[in-house]
Amino acid sequence: MTGATSPSVVEVRVEYKPGVLDPEASSIEKSLGLLGIPEVSHVGTARIYRLEFSGVSQVEAERLAARAVDRLLANPVIHRVTITASPPP
Amino acid sequence: MTGATSPSVVEVRVEYKPGVLDPEASSIEKSLGLLGIPEVSHVGTARIYRLEFSGVSQVEAERLAARAVDRLLANPVIHRVTITASPPP
Repeated sequence: MTGATSPSVVEVRVEYKPGVLDPEASSIEKSLGLLGIPEVSHVGTARIYRLEFSGVSQVEAERLAARAVDRLLANPVIHRVTITASPPP
Repeated sequence: MTGATSPSVVEVRVEYKPGVLDPEASSIEKSLGLLGIPEVSHVGTARIYRLEFSGVSQVEAERLAARAVDRLLANPVIHRVTITASPPP
């Protein structure tokens, strides 16, 4: 790796497992109805974390991203996690 | 449209414009360093809203999603918004 290489990028998507209460989504559903958009029948939310790594390969970046998920970014009891390597900018 | 059609789905991605302070991302960057993952050089966050519409076409769903963004989901001063029609499940 040289300093000139572009960073390895990994996107982590964290959403609730089916059946877990998502109060923000419920609030949005209700608000959209009140705002005159009642055609929305269901809302789900997710959080994206875009991690840029410097000085490591893409493979290593994915391994480190999985560790970041385990240590900090998600709770396996309630969250479903999707890791995407090299997402579009 | 009949009741048997599957819902039209639109995903809205809301992230901060470049230069807007993202305190959650800064906190994650710092925490990952403390947790032994200092290879992360930059973190960005985004919010995904998955909107399911019933009884409207995909084109109409996209139009309504854009209205939901304007009325509720994003602040054009600080947010950049990407709307994706028919995202993967």
